[in-house]
Amino acid sequence: MKPVNLKQLAGELNLSVATVSRALNDRYDISQPTKDRVRELARKLNYEPNPYASGLRRQQSKIIGVIIPEVANHFFSLVINGIEEVARANDYHVLFYLTHDDHQRELSVARLLANGRVEGVLVSVANDKQDFSHLEALQGRGVPVVFFDRVQEETTTAKVTTNDYESSYEATRHLIDNGCRTIAHLVVSKTLSIGKRRMQGYTDALKDSGIAYEEELVVYAQASKAQDIEAIQALLLKRPDIDGIFASVESLAMSSYEACRNLGLVIPTDIKVIGFSNLETASLLDPPLTTVTQPAYAIGQEAARILFQAIIKNTPIVATQSIELKSELVVRGSTVAEMVKL
Amino acid sequence: MKPVNLKQLAGELNLSVATVSRALNDRYDISQPTKDRVRELARKLNYEPNPYASGLRRQQSKIIGVIIPEVANHFFSLVINGIEEVARANDYHVLFYLTHDDHQRELSVARLLANGRVEGVLVSVANDKQDFSHLEALQGRGVPVVFFDRVQEETTTAKVTTNDYESSYEATRHLIDNGCRTIAHLVVSKTLSIGKRRMQGYTDALKDSGIAYEEELVVYAQASKAQDIEAIQALLLKRPDIDGIFASVESLAMSSYEACRNLGLVIPTDIKVIGFSNLETASLLDPPLTTVTQPAYAIGQEAARILFQAIIKNTPIVATQSIELKSELVVRGSTVAEMVKL
Repeated sequence: MKPVNLKQLAGELNLSVATVSRALNDRYDISQPTKDRVRELARKLNYEPNPYASGLRRQQSKIIGVIIPEVANHFFSLVINGIEEVARANDYHVLFYLTHDDHQRELSVARLLANGRVEGVLVSVANDKQDFSHLEALQGRGVPVVFFDRVQEETTTAKVTTNDYESSYEATRHLIDNGCRTIAHLVVSKTLSIGKRRMQGYTDALKDSGIAYEEELVVYAQASKAQDIEAIQALLLKRPDIDGIFASVESLAMSSYEACRNLGLVIPTDIKVIGFSNLETASLLDPPLTTVTQPAYAIGQEAARILFQAIIKNTPIVATQSIELKSELVVRGSTVAEMVKL
Repeated sequence: MKPVNLKQLAGELNLSVATVSRALNDRYDISQPTKDRVRELARKLNYEPNPYASGLRRQQSKIIGVIIPEVANHFFSLVINGIEEVARANDYHVLFYLTHDDHQRELSVARLLANGRVEGVLVSVANDKQDFSHLEALQGRGVPVVFFDRVQEETTTAKVTTNDYESSYEATRHLIDNGCRTIAHLVVSKTLSIGKRRMQGYTDALKDSGIAYEEELVVYAQASKAQDIEAIQALLLKRPDIDGIFASVESLAMSSYEACRNLGLVIPTDIKVIGFSNLETASLLDPPLTTVTQPAYAIGQEAARILFQAIIKNTPIVATQSIELKSELVVRGSTVAEMVKL
């Protein structure tokens, strides 16, 4: 007897092909009686799933996709390790895709992944556009998505973030408490959620200390490291009263070190520097860098846990599953003179 | 008229299905007369390729896969950028897979990739086994493979490497020229090609300077950073005459800095340190690290170029396409006292 296909099953049962497929895949949105009816007939007619049907290929791939901006930043290499630990425990492989903050590439790879290759996707978004329709498209095709760190604020899915506002407030207060009055803020992006929250923490800390916010003291990341260093140097030359730098990402803290060295400014005597960073060598720098250290490994673990729950239980991910983890201020020699030589 | 499939075409032509498929895909190993015969019949019978047939899916995926040990090492983040530049120029996406030096995972993902998802693979091998049959399996399924940096010596495909022996010899000589007589060598792996070549450069440089090789001075990478630091400290305590450290990978150079600091040893006064490294912050360390800097970006570009030539022209990759690029010795304060404060 020739094996039946999904369409024939659907015809016999007077159901849509999609419903029959979802029933066979034990999806959450199909009632138990319907699942029972479909399975009974499938057994009776010796239905065998076609391994080339795209929906089933996705079910069987045992792969999740991770879309991240870059890997040179230590934050993301730690996140990756956290994700992989959970994936391995679930016997899944992880494929990574780097967007280099290019929205177009993010869009293009999301479509590619939606095309049946992965069972779920973790995303830290690129930073230049506010169009996230491609990620909704992934969800629309039944591929669960979890955002982490650089998230879409208005999403209906879960997000794993850190307390960016509070830790940015604390970092700025740390500089003020150590005598800084004119604090430059180096920002990764005007449009990214993390950029906005970190900026708010900075401005509120200034206000609460009676220090006026000056737009001139805010520098945004440029297209290259060389341009970052140049922009920081230009600001330091224009405003020799600057006595503190708060970098909202690791690369800008490193560019600050180079800019200060080029100008002959001594950290922390002439100027104090603090940065968001997961740099393993922070304590080996000259001077050791004071950091806001994000729980990067835990972010990867938590995001992956939420994703695998959805994959394995066939349930949708909802915004209420979102988690906020806490970052830690690690004080070193770049903000406190007596800590330079330990 | 019902469309014909590959099998029917093959039957009519008295050829195998594989031959017909390869003829339609313009593969190099099918003769022109056969290609012409197959195509003529395909046109006549309105043959349409089945997009779900695995061979064709591979042809159309526009994805290459890259298998690397890790991303925390700056060498690999630069290689990634080089690969992506070439892939973008060819309008391809790049998916990455990290083995964490686990041979079993490398084997498992190679099988997964062979299963029709990517059109080519670039590999830097994991370091604990000498079994590379899974990579040959990729080639056997028509997926071209290029090795880079951590390569299989006996492979029949192309390799992109650096002059590990010469640069290791030069690094060791640099320490000797700066007064070191008891030089520890920290090695990434006993079995990896790069580990062996770097070890040979070290021992030959010692011999040519009339310094005896001592097995006790060689330390292999441990399972964790904490264990690396402990092993280095143990050696430095046992052999207080050690006046130089040559680390064959970046992470071991950083662990040497931490070990020296823990023991109160001052670099470069008490002990000099040199390491293979692409660390962006090498010049910001205390003291700045003297490095053997590999042309990581170019390695990625060259490996990708060889791969895309094979993908686009449908030609096999041969060992004679292998390339060796040159590394550079960058002298900084960790080996020369007067360079500590620039």
